[in-house]
Amino acid sequence: MKHIYCEIITIGDEILYGHILDTNAQWISQELDKIGITTKKRTTIGDNSKDITNVLDKSLNENELIILTGGLGPTNDDITKNCLNNFFGGKLVTDKNTLSHIKKIFKKRNFDFTKKNKDQARIPDNCIVLHNQFGTAPGMAFQKDNKLIISLPGVPFEMKSLFTNKCVGLIKNKFLLPFIYHRTIKTIGIGESWLSDLIKNWESNLDESVSLAYLPSLGRVKLRLTGKGDNLEKIKKKINNYEENLLKIIQKYVYGFDKEELESSIGKLLIKKNKTISFAESCTGGFISRMITSVPGSSQYFMGSIVAYSNEIKINNLNIKKENIEKYGAVSREVAEEMAKNVRQKFKSSIGISTSGIAGPDGGTKEKPVGTIWIGYSNKNKTTSKKLILTKRRDINITLSAVNALNQVRINLESNSKGNRHSSK
Amino acid sequence: MKHIYCEIITIGDEILYGHILDTNAQWISQELDKIGITTKKRTTIGDNSKDITNVLDKSLNENELIILTGGLGPTNDDITKNCLNNFFGGKLVTDKNTLSHIKKIFKKRNFDFTKKNKDQARIPDNCIVLHNQFGTAPGMAFQKDNKLIISLPGVPFEMKSLFTNKCVGLIKNKFLLPFIYHRTIKTIGIGESWLSDLIKNWESNLDESVSLAYLPSLGRVKLRLTGKGDNLEKIKKKINNYEENLLKIIQKYVYGFDKEELESSIGKLLIKKNKTISFAESCTGGFISRMITSVPGSSQYFMGSIVAYSNEIKINNLNIKKENIEKYGAVSREVAEEMAKNVRQKFKSSIGISTSGIAGPDGGTKEKPVGTIWIGYSNKNKTTSKKLILTKRRDINITLSAVNALNQVRINLESNSKGNRHSSK
Repeated sequence: MKHIYCEIITIGDEILYGHILDTNAQWISQELDKIGITTKKRTTIGDNSKDITNVLDKSLNENELIILTGGLGPTNDDITKNCLNNFFGGKLVTDKNTLSHIKKIFKKRNFDFTKKNKDQARIPDNCIVLHNQFGTAPGMAFQKDNKLIISLPGVPFEMKSLFTNKCVGLIKNKFLLPFIYHRTIKTIGIGESWLSDLIKNWESNLDESVSLAYLPSLGRVKLRLTGKGDNLEKIKKKINNYEENLLKIIQKYVYGFDKEELESSIGKLLIKKNKTISFAESCTGGFISRMITSVPGSSQYFMGSIVAYSNEIKINNLNIKKENIEKYGAVSREVAEEMAKNVRQKFKSSIGISTSGIAGPDGGTKEKPVGTIWIGYSNKNKTTSKKLILTKRRDINITLSAVNALNQVRINLESNSKGNRHSSK
Repeated sequence: MKHIYCEIITIGDEILYGHILDTNAQWISQELDKIGITTKKRTTIGDNSKDITNVLDKSLNENELIILTGGLGPTNDDITKNCLNNFFGGKLVTDKNTLSHIKKIFKKRNFDFTKKNKDQARIPDNCIVLHNQFGTAPGMAFQKDNKLIISLPGVPFEMKSLFTNKCVGLIKNKFLLPFIYHRTIKTIGIGESWLSDLIKNWESNLDESVSLAYLPSLGRVKLRLTGKGDNLEKIKKKINNYEENLLKIIQKYVYGFDKEELESSIGKLLIKKNKTISFAESCTGGFISRMITSVPGSSQYFMGSIVAYSNEIKINNLNIKKENIEKYGAVSREVAEEMAKNVRQKFKSSIGISTSGIAGPDGGTKEKPVGTIWIGYSNKNKTTSKKLILTKRRDINITLSAVNALNQVRINLESNSKGNRHSSK
């Protein structure tokens, strides 16, 4: 089976100069990946016919499929259509279906129909017209030297609809494609290089039809396994086997798979264990609550939080002993544990979590430098805490503290369940 | 003055295949624009040395400046460094400063130091090493045929810090650039098209050396004025004049300028007015607190918050009257105002702000559809509230509610000061 490569070409000054973020190219890459086409390159250029022609010319030497987006609007800076027409040596002719579609749209919105809009219905006579039900600019598909070149509008929802409803069929008709299968295993509490060392032997046994990618973010690393071949069931089975062996090594760091996020995986765990949670946040300033409540339905397990930023509020509203703050400081094991315990009792939740630390950039001392964070954990049986030494950067410290706090929930709930399993044997 | 063109090359399978969104290229385009360099092309390729070499080779023919990001990590799929080393004919040698920096990071975090980490300190001997204070992979700058090629890590905060602190200086030293002066005026509480209508006449008077960009984000629109020329003082003066006239029209929507964020501008306003603040957050789930505490030194004016997600906590910990929740519902003027007032009194702050709403995607009714939000505001003289009808999308509703709540603080504090000014006349 011949490997099919694609280049995605994004056209538009507003993307190139960074005025808007290009989300189209990412989306198209993902969709191509699903049907077994490898994106070989992505290119962004401005609304400039010389650049469009150059890039197209080079790309045709390297790829079987080219997908262009953007530059099909009615204004003067939209030149993609004319450029493609010249490139493929066609002639612009009025497409009757497109013209009546555009007229219909204008009538419905009560807009004036100008010459520019009428021009949008003039399409190269040597392309397949891809009817755009949501907008005035149709997509176009050209063929040259057994290659397929597709031009789509840049407006994301128009592009997506055209791609899904028109392009996927065209592409599958044109090329014989392999099957692709991805599996992402998401870890927390272990850095990229340790993880890499830990799974070195396992990794070296991956066969060549399977690839592994490390995708790190703050406090977390995702491992993505990708298999490719002509038999989907075989690939899935192979990847499943690799995953099984991988989990034997790294299970305790795994919080989820594929699209599962940390905050929703913690939510599911709380529901599964029939637990509720509340937070006493100092240095994280509400960020843990914000993460947890970003998940729809979190009111099922999240009771609420006290963001106890000032010592006064720690004392008056979280009932932290004043003498503990005076003796140990607010950033201490004693105060963090008291905060976790008290918020749990106050809010009548199964679990209480606290954070107290010096997020920075100021406020550090020699004994407690910026980045010193205590995370407290309390349930009805025990109250514990953990000290972290993080960075000098406030935003990173806040994020890492929040991620770490959620990881404490995971570790405690999962070790609980292991305990239960053992005791039920 | 020769025009300087740049290509931005993003390296990484995870970007190319669409597993993560490339925000780096957009950010770099914007930063280059600020110093008068035009992004000519952006290219994304995988972790593949042939592709890297090919793209680099072509790019050197077309651009004076090339910026690469990604592929500098410690794992096997990170090949950018070796590739550049071969391309520029260098030799990898251990960079002592980088090695001791990496060792320091590892020691501090109490991590094992592996061979892979040590290898990160091996750098081509023909590049300028760009010290990366936030990570283990340094940036590198090469020169060839009077062109500048810079390689940066892909982790956004490491890349940004290196770009701002090391690259801008290098680039400005290397090339003769025009003077560019930007002034950004940040508005809140008015949509893009209304704003555009409001300032139409002013905008039509801008001369051709000055450009205006509308940069909208949720609940806010930034207006960026850019002037370009060979005399910085002249440009500044011109832009200042335009700004003065603009402010006469839109002053009441303006919360800040240039890099000022909404959360820090509210902080400054609170300090100026000698006020403290606390929040009772329901539908925003901690997001307002998180925004406010993202600002260093916010403990000066932020007392704390209660994230009262459940009605139980609203009743038991915010002292909301149970009969009000039963009679009006938690999402109501009455409850929002009570929440704002009670949190202010409980936390002894000058101002109390509350949010109560249906963030979605579920939980809406005919009378109170998803997106119905109440914002409460309370100071010692008055307690008021405002109803918002937002969208169907949870994430957007949470953000817009938080932004709107902070805008209430701004409007109230600023109208206060106007009142004072009038009464002192």
